[in-house]
Amino acid sequence: MSEHTNKQFHSDLETTRSLFLQMGGVVEAMVQEGMEALSSGDLSLVDRVREREKDVNRLEVEIDELIGLLIARNQPTAIDLRLLLSVSKMLTDMERCGDEAEKIAKMARRLHESETPYVPVIELRHMASHVATMIRDALDSFAREDPVHAAMVVRNDKDVDKEWKASLRHVITYMIEDPRTISRSIDLIFIARSLERIGDHAKNMAERVIYMVRGDDVRHTGVKNTERTARGGVPDEENEI
Amino acid sequence: MSEHTNKQFHSDLETTRSLFLQMGGVVEAMVQEGMEALSSGDLSLVDRVREREKDVNRLEVEIDELIGLLIARNQPTAIDLRLLLSVSKMLTDMERCGDEAEKIAKMARRLHESETPYVPVIELRHMASHVATMIRDALDSFAREDPVHAAMVVRNDKDVDKEWKASLRHVITYMIEDPRTISRSIDLIFIARSLERIGDHAKNMAERVIYMVRGDDVRHTGVKNTERTARGGVPDEENEI
Repeated sequence: MSEHTNKQFHSDLETTRSLFLQMGGVVEAMVQEGMEALSSGDLSLVDRVREREKDVNRLEVEIDELIGLLIARNQPTAIDLRLLLSVSKMLTDMERCGDEAEKIAKMARRLHESETPYVPVIELRHMASHVATMIRDALDSFAREDPVHAAMVVRNDKDVDKEWKASLRHVITYMIEDPRTISRSIDLIFIARSLERIGDHAKNMAERVIYMVRGDDVRHTGVKNTERTARGGVPDEENEI
Repeated sequence: MSEHTNKQFHSDLETTRSLFLQMGGVVEAMVQEGMEALSSGDLSLVDRVREREKDVNRLEVEIDELIGLLIARNQPTAIDLRLLLSVSKMLTDMERCGDEAEKIAKMARRLHESETPYVPVIELRHMASHVATMIRDALDSFAREDPVHAAMVVRNDKDVDKEWKASLRHVITYMIEDPRTISRSIDLIFIARSLERIGDHAKNMAERVIYMVRGDDVRHTGVKNTERTARGGVPDEENEI
């Protein structure tokens, strides 16, 4: 690669990174606005989320195109290639987080427009702020190339799963006590489910960050080795499954 | 590329394709066995699905590794690169189909092991065979590099969405009529939801096949142009959103 091509390539890599971070910022806002629409009943937020979803789709296609172009043109290897392949995978998860946020916003509209006034039977704000933080932490670990921070996101997903199961039990109890709430309760279950999915996608992205920085595929092995070697330890031979 | 390297590269591409098709075959079997466990109560099938899930995870990691290696070593461009990038994305969808099938199998166990005998309140076999066919069609369109067949899978997803919504309405009616069924009905809702997700993943894979063969990203534009140009027409300038 000539010096000029090399410089251009590294500036294009930087563009890819910053476009992805921009996309992540939009998705994070969508999650917050979707939940805000649910709790406040401000339905202009629903329209805003739907607008943002188009931006997310546009960014997904644009970044994917750029990645294909950069690989074909510059034939990157090692960490540069891992960066591009990781962003390519993370894009899918990020776009799906946006989809889930849009589903939450649409549910919020339905709940607030129904004839029976919307009274929340369960509190989902904690879970929502938890998964929004996971998206932000996954983005931070990507921006700072920090596998230990990414490993924390992977671990956090277990708490989200617990919150999801607790919410589900809570809603089911409520439905059994007062069957008139069944329809609305099902909507709430889907909102909780969407939050749980967002947590899952954030975890997937964090796993890709670890792959990007370290070259280790931890998707089905856990993050113990990531944390151990970061503290100067030696990797464990055994998988952690 | 020397003739030898070139030959080796094309044989490696072939390996990638056939490993992915093998993974797809395993996932298709998982969906069928999960549903069979639900309808027959044969819980040995649940264990088989869980075993297969490990094979799927192993294949996912193995294929992804191969893809990274082939891109780094052989610096492919055009259709070869699109094949590798597409399989890389399809892998994720395929692995998640396997996850959903595993969830179905676990639900089947729960329903059949509960104290109240399991009586299906809704019929999900049609939807299940529909999405299993979508996986097979997505794989066929990939194996034959047939964008029109892939476009059909994308269209089929709308029918699955309709079936999902109808199932949901049906279960809700049932729960309201007989609140004692609430817990079990929620499990059925999740099974139907998993089937709907599998349909969605099959659609995503079909969209990637179109990208692989044609270089068109149809994820947010629809498949009308794919079908029109395949019949010898000219592509439409307008997006179909």
